[in-house]
Amino acid sequence: MDTALLEKVMGQVSEELGIKKPQETTKTSIGVTEFVGTAMGDTIGLVIASVDPLLTETMGLGEFKSIGIIGGRIGAGPQIMAVDDAIKATNTEIITVELPRDTKGGAGHGSLIYIGAHDVSDARRAVEIALEAVPKYFGDVYSNDAGHLEFQYTARASYCLESVFNTPLGKSFGMVCAGPAAIGTVLADTAVKSANVEVVSYASPKAGTSYSNEVILTFSGDSGAVRQAVRAAREVGIKLLGTLGDEPKSSTTPYI
Amino acid sequence: MDTALLEKVMGQVSEELGIKKPQETTKTSIGVTEFVGTAMGDTIGLVIASVDPLLTETMGLGEFKSIGIIGGRIGAGPQIMAVDDAIKATNTEIITVELPRDTKGGAGHGSLIYIGAHDVSDARRAVEIALEAVPKYFGDVYSNDAGHLEFQYTARASYCLESVFNTPLGKSFGMVCAGPAAIGTVLADTAVKSANVEVVSYASPKAGTSYSNEVILTFSGDSGAVRQAVRAAREVGIKLLGTLGDEPKSSTTPYI
Amino acid sequence: MDTALLEKVMGQVSEELGIKKPQETTKTSIGVTEFVGTAMGDTIGLVIASVDPLLTETMGLGEFKSIGIIGGRIGAGPQIMAVDDAIKATNTEIITVELPRDTKGGAGHGSLIYIGAHDVSDARRAVEIALEAVPKYFGDVYSNDAGHLEFQYTARASYCLESVFNTPLGKSFGMVCAGPAAIGTVLADTAVKSANVEVVSYASPKAGTSYSNEVILTFSGDSGAVRQAVRAAREVGIKLLGTLGDEPKSSTTPYI
Repeated sequence: MDTALLEKVMGQVSEELGIKKPQETTKTSIGVTEFVGTAMGDTIGLVIASVDPLLTETMGLGEFKSIGIIGGRIGAGPQIMAVDDAIKATNTEIITVELPRDTKGGAGHGSLIYIGAHDVSDARRAVEIALEAVPKYFGDVYSNDAGHLEFQYTARASYCLESVFNTPLGKSFGMVCAGPAAIGTVLADTAVKSANVEVVSYASPKAGTSYSNEVILTFSGDSGAVRQAVRAAREVGIKLLGTLGDEPKSSTTPYI
Repeated sequence: MDTALLEKVMGQVSEELGIKKPQETTKTSIGVTEFVGTAMGDTIGLVIASVDPLLTETMGLGEFKSIGIIGGRIGAGPQIMAVDDAIKATNTEIITVELPRDTKGGAGHGSLIYIGAHDVSDARRAVEIALEAVPKYFGDVYSNDAGHLEFQYTARASYCLESVFNTPLGKSFGMVCAGPAAIGTVLADTAVKSANVEVVSYASPKAGTSYSNEVILTFSGDSGAVRQAVRAAREVGIKLLGTLGDEPKSSTTPYI
Repeated sequence: MDTALLEKVMGQVSEELGIKKPQETTKTSIGVTEFVGTAMGDTIGLVIASVDPLLTETMGLGEFKSIGIIGGRIGAGPQIMAVDDAIKATNTEIITVELPRDTKGGAGHGSLIYIGAHDVSDARRAVEIALEAVPKYFGDVYSNDAGHLEFQYTARASYCLESVFNTPLGKSFGMVCAGPAAIGTVLADTAVKSANVEVVSYASPKAGTSYSNEVILTFSGDSGAVRQAVRAAREVGIKLLGTLGDEPKSSTTPYI
């Protein structure tokens, strides 16, 4: 494919997603070529231009030797959404998404995401885009001392969301999640009752999570319906988690 | 079965268990019909009158459409014991008990328990009874900065304990548990040496737990023997955990 | 085997390892015969002279009735290395090593290690040696608010390391590890690129760990090469983890 054309297409998609070119970070002088940057949730972005052949098979990298890495202590959803945007906007592919049981004592997951590229500059660009998008997707993560709520929404799911949840490519995608898990059960029920959506996945501590204290429902459908389902669950979730502590607060700015 | 008779039987069992009708909670006005109440351990009690058909199969609800939900961040044992009482005292059944790896940075589990009922008022009553019983069963949970000890005992195990541990129905049941797990190993040995009990289950980080840092032994037998085994382990456990920090303190009031 | 000779050999190995006889601990008067001592990482050392027959099969003790137990809330690597020394220096064998998901809200594991012996005095001696060695092996554990780095090295792997990682007995062994896991991926690549080593194992949140937020690479080879690989990764790791917080600090004193 023509590189100039590719660049142009990527640029348009980036603009559409509201993703600006990341500013120079003050941390680029740490003297480690793999380092790209950091984001909230103790998230770090890295690249390896050419993974050592001793590791490519073990790490399941397939045909790729250049990889981008996004991983954090707190949060899997925001990083997954951010990488979904990054894959849309760059010439890269998703390799794996792993979900450690983490959140630094919280109820949820951390994340480890490998992005494959044939050229390290593509991997780096994808990591930059993902790091920049992470704060947006923490916007509908609400928390208090007792736990957290997470809501995600996109009008058009791409390869990272397909890889993790098996949601239909290019269709609207929604997620409702809460920890303690008991609240998540009610949110799941609220979401599917609020609008005409199709269930994509249901996860609970014993299946589909890494033993996190969460119930997570994902769904697809008409984008208006998906958004409505997410919003209805969000309203109930904030009230329910609030009974166990202070009013849950957004980590940044709600976007849904 | 005659409803009036059923009510009477339930009432007698409730009285026997020392369970009072829960007081009105000040939180019933949050405007979410599913909300029942809260208890220690960041435990929340909820009901869903009629789970959406899109979810009943995924959630493994079987014949039940009304469910009660008890889940918390801290503790699985106290909530399991409390639900065992609730199942005894109401016209409900246990559906599933899931054990997230949680305790908010502690060594143990959180909990997510689904109770099935054909009528939501039964589910609600079960959740109310369970919430009220939770503090009692935190009575023999002891902790300090280094970890925790948990001891449980009942003269007559019911369906929730049978479901989780496969302990004989209607017989006495005891549990000894500690985190860090190393202490639990000694407690398990101490318990079985202290009285003539039969081992029901043994769990350690790699099997029978959700990778919690605990060894958990459960046993059955003559109620006097079971209680003696639990008490002997408790005495040793408080000394051992105390070598890693302050003297372990009960979370409420010891009951065994 | 002649006991006096055995004692002498053990003594020499102990000296070679730089292990002194543990001092009397002030805590031996807690009145629990199983208690041996404590070490950092909320680590406790225990012995059971004769495990109750009701438990030996469930616990997988095989032919052993005397066991030593080392377990902690924080750290698996330091305790594994310490027990590896202890097995070398005593007439004991490794039974099992279990890795709970712990570190008290951190990104890694806790530990539960069973050591088998035919005589409880051997088990006790092994536990004493292990407890004494734990601080040394926390020397290359570095941490800040965002996570941790761990590096281990020995010129001669023994039975505990073989049991956990399947590394060749008697050969040099190295380990590099970081949480958040993303940093560990770069450390793994850095290590294998820095020297001619053979990969022994690669673990990530979804495989080879208990869902910890770590990537862990172990390797074998010429002892100079192994040490060089570990040191190269350590240099990079300290810089990378430092981008997420303060400069990572050693838990005790670096030894590699």
